[in-house]
Amino acid sequence: MKYNFPVIKTTHPKEKPDPDTLRFGQIFTDHMFMMEYSPEQGWHNGRIQPYAPLQLDPAAAVFHYAQEMFEGLKAYKSKDGRVLLFRPDMNARRTTNTNERMCIPHIDEELFVEAIKAVVGVDREWIPSKKGTSLYVRPFIIADEPFLGVRPADHFLFMIILSPVGPYYEGGLAPTKIYVENEFVRATPGGTGAAKIGGNYAASLKSQEKAHESGYEQVLWLDGVERKYVEEIGTSNAFFKIGDEVVTAPLTGTILPGITRDSVINLLKQWGMKVSERRMTIDEVFEAGKSGKLVEMFATGTAAVISPVGELSWKGEKVTINNGEIGELSQKLYDELYGLQIGEVEDKLGWTVEV
Amino acid sequence: MKYNFPVIKTTHPKEKPDPDTLRFGQIFTDHMFMMEYSPEQGWHNGRIQPYAPLQLDPAAAVFHYAQEMFEGLKAYKSKDGRVLLFRPDMNARRTTNTNERMCIPHIDEELFVEAIKAVVGVDREWIPSKKGTSLYVRPFIIADEPFLGVRPADHFLFMIILSPVGPYYEGGLAPTKIYVENEFVRATPGGTGAAKIGGNYAASLKSQEKAHESGYEQVLWLDGVERKYVEEIGTSNAFFKIGDEVVTAPLTGTILPGITRDSVINLLKQWGMKVSERRMTIDEVFEAGKSGKLVEMFATGTAAVISPVGELSWKGEKVTINNGEIGELSQKLYDELYGLQIGEVEDKLGWTVEV
Repeated sequence: MKYNFPVIKTTHPKEKPDPDTLRFGQIFTDHMFMMEYSPEQGWHNGRIQPYAPLQLDPAAAVFHYAQEMFEGLKAYKSKDGRVLLFRPDMNARRTTNTNERMCIPHIDEELFVEAIKAVVGVDREWIPSKKGTSLYVRPFIIADEPFLGVRPADHFLFMIILSPVGPYYEGGLAPTKIYVENEFVRATPGGTGAAKIGGNYAASLKSQEKAHESGYEQVLWLDGVERKYVEEIGTSNAFFKIGDEVVTAPLTGTILPGITRDSVINLLKQWGMKVSERRMTIDEVFEAGKSGKLVEMFATGTAAVISPVGELSWKGEKVTINNGEIGELSQKLYDELYGLQIGEVEDKLGWTVEV
Repeated sequence: MKYNFPVIKTTHPKEKPDPDTLRFGQIFTDHMFMMEYSPEQGWHNGRIQPYAPLQLDPAAAVFHYAQEMFEGLKAYKSKDGRVLLFRPDMNARRTTNTNERMCIPHIDEELFVEAIKAVVGVDREWIPSKKGTSLYVRPFIIADEPFLGVRPADHFLFMIILSPVGPYYEGGLAPTKIYVENEFVRATPGGTGAAKIGGNYAASLKSQEKAHESGYEQVLWLDGVERKYVEEIGTSNAFFKIGDEVVTAPLTGTILPGITRDSVINLLKQWGMKVSERRMTIDEVFEAGKSGKLVEMFATGTAAVISPVGELSWKGEKVTINNGEIGELSQKLYDELYGLQIGEVEDKLGWTVEV
């Protein structure tokens, strides 16, 4: 390892949660990683310390101007006792791109991955091993400089916190009902849709609230300019299996470059399937839905891995997909990806990294 | 007063700054207002207490999902010793609209204004009286509930902090150089452009950095769909005097409904001038610039009040406005608004509120 982070161990270890009642992102482990940035020292003082509240000035830029970013990945314990991360280099790369867009100082990608390994290593006893559970890893950066006035901050904190989690959706791999969002827009060219930042998620809350009030789990976002091309599902990437072609939106700046998205594309190609990263209109999706050509639809993301869609609603019309059941491809992708992540499927591509 | 907030006074009052060296948003007063929200109690426990760091869990939603909003206004000390706020009811109203968009629980508008009056009253000795200085008032709300997972939070903090400030632009009322932003977009229909939230400002930082690197103070934003209609200048509203008509972008959801913007429109109408809230293309602006019809251009905002634009650049072309000097109307608007704010112009419209 190139980096060596000092560890200050907690003197008050917490009780570990019951793996049967784990939810998502409610409980945090004993330790966290923290590193500071100043113009004079750059990123410095990386260390692991007890999980504890932050003390921040009320004028800290993050509270006012949301100069912040985050990442998400999971650590799994394999049956033979290894601790595995899934493609953490992709999180490091995306952090570089997000930071560039958000005027946050670059973090060396090797340091980023080593910091994750170090803190997960310290709290490895917190990784649950029950099927469907994992240790969710949340790296994030906030501007902690206290000032008012719009400009990039000069001082930042980079932190990694860890949360033992159950399945993201309580119901497991059950198909969701979603509707097409016509009122609100997630991202637009020239905006921040490809960056993993708080502001994108804050802007999406209203739409999610509307979906829940109407009895839907999530929304399908359309592009912000023509309002006709399908982009993402909630906070996940969207895939459509139309006949033999699997379609997902291309990475043109409004789409989050999901790591599960990239993995799914890779697997499908490896399996000899036709995958198209292309713009597709909601009209095309609905026509395919009505004619029976839309055989599967699913969302991909770190939290849920694969989340099948069973019903899609748009302007009062509904299409049911695969009889509202989990599709064959969705299940196969989930099994393969989850199997890779927990070390039960042979990792031919070198995607898993041992802590 | 309908509300009565307890006051916990500081035992360690800070030294007040030299009014000659005041900058913007660097120094904070002795006290702050704080109130909490929970689903069980609603907004509760409003109080004034010593200015001090916040203790927040690293998983607090504001750090990850930027569920946050802010407002800004100024308190002035008049020559006859009164403390004046300028249209605080407009900040309260805008807070209501922002909260609605951001899934933040509604705050009673009367409470909002009374909280400002109360905390400004406690720290009234901090209001500087030198010309061009004021006490900047920053109400803001953050989601402080600790959890990971995208949903509206259940717990919030509403705070008001105060900062004695000098002029926003160091150079005073000097015309700025701005360029037309073709790459980045500030807002789009269906997005959050009309809400006063951190995410909008975070998204604009890159563009501001680019402007500064190119020798410009700010950018002129174009609309996100057709990329041809002028919208705002940096973090301010934009006004163009073309011949006898004063034009500003209409409030169609992508424009921040500025309080200075509204005040300027009111004053111009009162003065019998032609004011149009209409969409205008950058082509029209440049043609007017080249033919000499663009006689003045200025930005409006709480921090700078009126900020004249002396040069506008677009795709390699430049137009100089009013020979790069402060225009007659810009100066008149500044004098009138600033005069009203400090209590030296008779307040016929009841815009000022005494603390």
